[in-house]
Amino acid sequence: MGATKKTTIVLFSGDYDKTMAAYIIANGAAAYDHEVTIFHTFWGLNALRKENHVPVKKGILEKMFGKMMPKGADKMGISKMNYMGMGPKMIKKVMKKHNSMPLPDLIDMAKEQDVKLIACTMTMDLLGLQKEELLVDLEYGGVSAYIGDAEDGNVNLFI
Amino acid sequence: MGATKKTTIVLFSGDYDKTMAAYIIANGAAAYDHEVTIFHTFWGLNALRKENHVPVKKGILEKMFGKMMPKGADKMGISKMNYMGMGPKMIKKVMKKHNSMPLPDLIDMAKEQDVKLIACTMTMDLLGLQKEELLVDLEYGGVSAYIGDAEDGNVNLFI
Amino acid sequence: MGATKKTTIVLFSGDYDKTMAAYIIANGAAAYDHEVTIFHTFWGLNALRKENHVPVKKGILEKMFGKMMPKGADKMGISKMNYMGMGPKMIKKVMKKHNSMPLPDLIDMAKEQDVKLIACTMTMDLLGLQKEELLVDLEYGGVSAYIGDAEDGNVNLFI
Repeated sequence: MGATKKTTIVLFSGDYDKTMAAYIIANGAAAYDHEVTIFHTFWGLNALRKENHVPVKKGILEKMFGKMMPKGADKMGISKMNYMGMGPKMIKKVMKKHNSMPLPDLIDMAKEQDVKLIACTMTMDLLGLQKEELLVDLEYGGVSAYIGDAEDGNVNLFI
Repeated sequence: MGATKKTTIVLFSGDYDKTMAAYIIANGAAAYDHEVTIFHTFWGLNALRKENHVPVKKGILEKMFGKMMPKGADKMGISKMNYMGMGPKMIKKVMKKHNSMPLPDLIDMAKEQDVKLIACTMTMDLLGLQKEELLVDLEYGGVSAYIGDAEDGNVNLFI
Repeated sequence: MGATKKTTIVLFSGDYDKTMAAYIIANGAAAYDHEVTIFHTFWGLNALRKENHVPVKKGILEKMFGKMMPKGADKMGISKMNYMGMGPKMIKKVMKKHNSMPLPDLIDMAKEQDVKLIACTMTMDLLGLQKEELLVDLEYGGVSAYIGDAEDGNVNLFI
């Protein structure tokens, strides 16, 4: 009997399209019975933010970052052809037309398939994001958690 | 006797320079007798478009995407210092001076070395790109084709 | 006794934040006793430039590239929210506040941990960067050096 295969993704990007690619690969690998981890770091952490403002105490710099960064997957821009926000709208329209899953649904699906979603604690500290502001059912870890997972991974990607 | 080594690349980016990097790595790995696959998804699919307009039936949104996106590798912009198109010209000029292969030649070389070029069918559907509009000798597949290849890969990259 | 694990990173990006991520992962993997290589190619080579102007003979195109590209890690912009240079300043301010290591220190740390820093000779040739303009203690190589390292790697990333 073969060992369980493993896929790990570092999600660094905060773009709607790149995050979609990350979650499509993650869901695909989970469907193939891989153990899958997505390690959300830097701007990738924004995919895990709650949509609504959560009142927490912050310094001024952290408040500014909080305001400037998108609140959750649905608010993110795309990496190409953003055109003042027209790009994401076109993409979402065309996705709807073709019955593609929007990003928030891809994240829910990943959770249902037991994809491990890790929030990078160093980034949380740096950008002043607190657990209350992030989705539930996450794990928290730093680079050592990532290395521990990835060194046995069959597919390791940085997105 | 060792098993054949395997390299797989997800080419997500539609930038000239990143696509060059992808094809240089692919050609290098093929020269080392790796089995190599490039899975073209999202904007990376533009590298595989024919240069000339191919008349096919499309909806309005798909027509818009078709017009806005570069037709083939030679038309793509670069990820940095694009400067209204000056960047790609400078890069191409400097490449010519140093006898570097331009991107379309790198793609031909990959084909000659039997690098497997896959067009992501989900992206084709989403952006309304049809087989007639893409280069010949491609394979077509979705995320499951990618996972199947990558899970045995020695070098797996997302570009 | 298990064999030494290996991590290789292709650093293509010239962004401060992505380069930070690359060096944080490299330092983390080295702390876990991995053999670590960072292969600096395209814009990633800028992280290895000396801060001060080094007088070397160059053609006009190469001089232009030399002027337009950041001289060293500390001068690089960030991939998101650059806001005419305000972003990098905010990031550095918030990093200082949280006692995070700035990028030049992360590079020094990598050197101390014997992370192998390779400068891509093809890129040096293309952009007209000469050894005198780069940090000391580097190795030099092309794509074949990279493939040779990566094909035995446990964690291979493209950043």
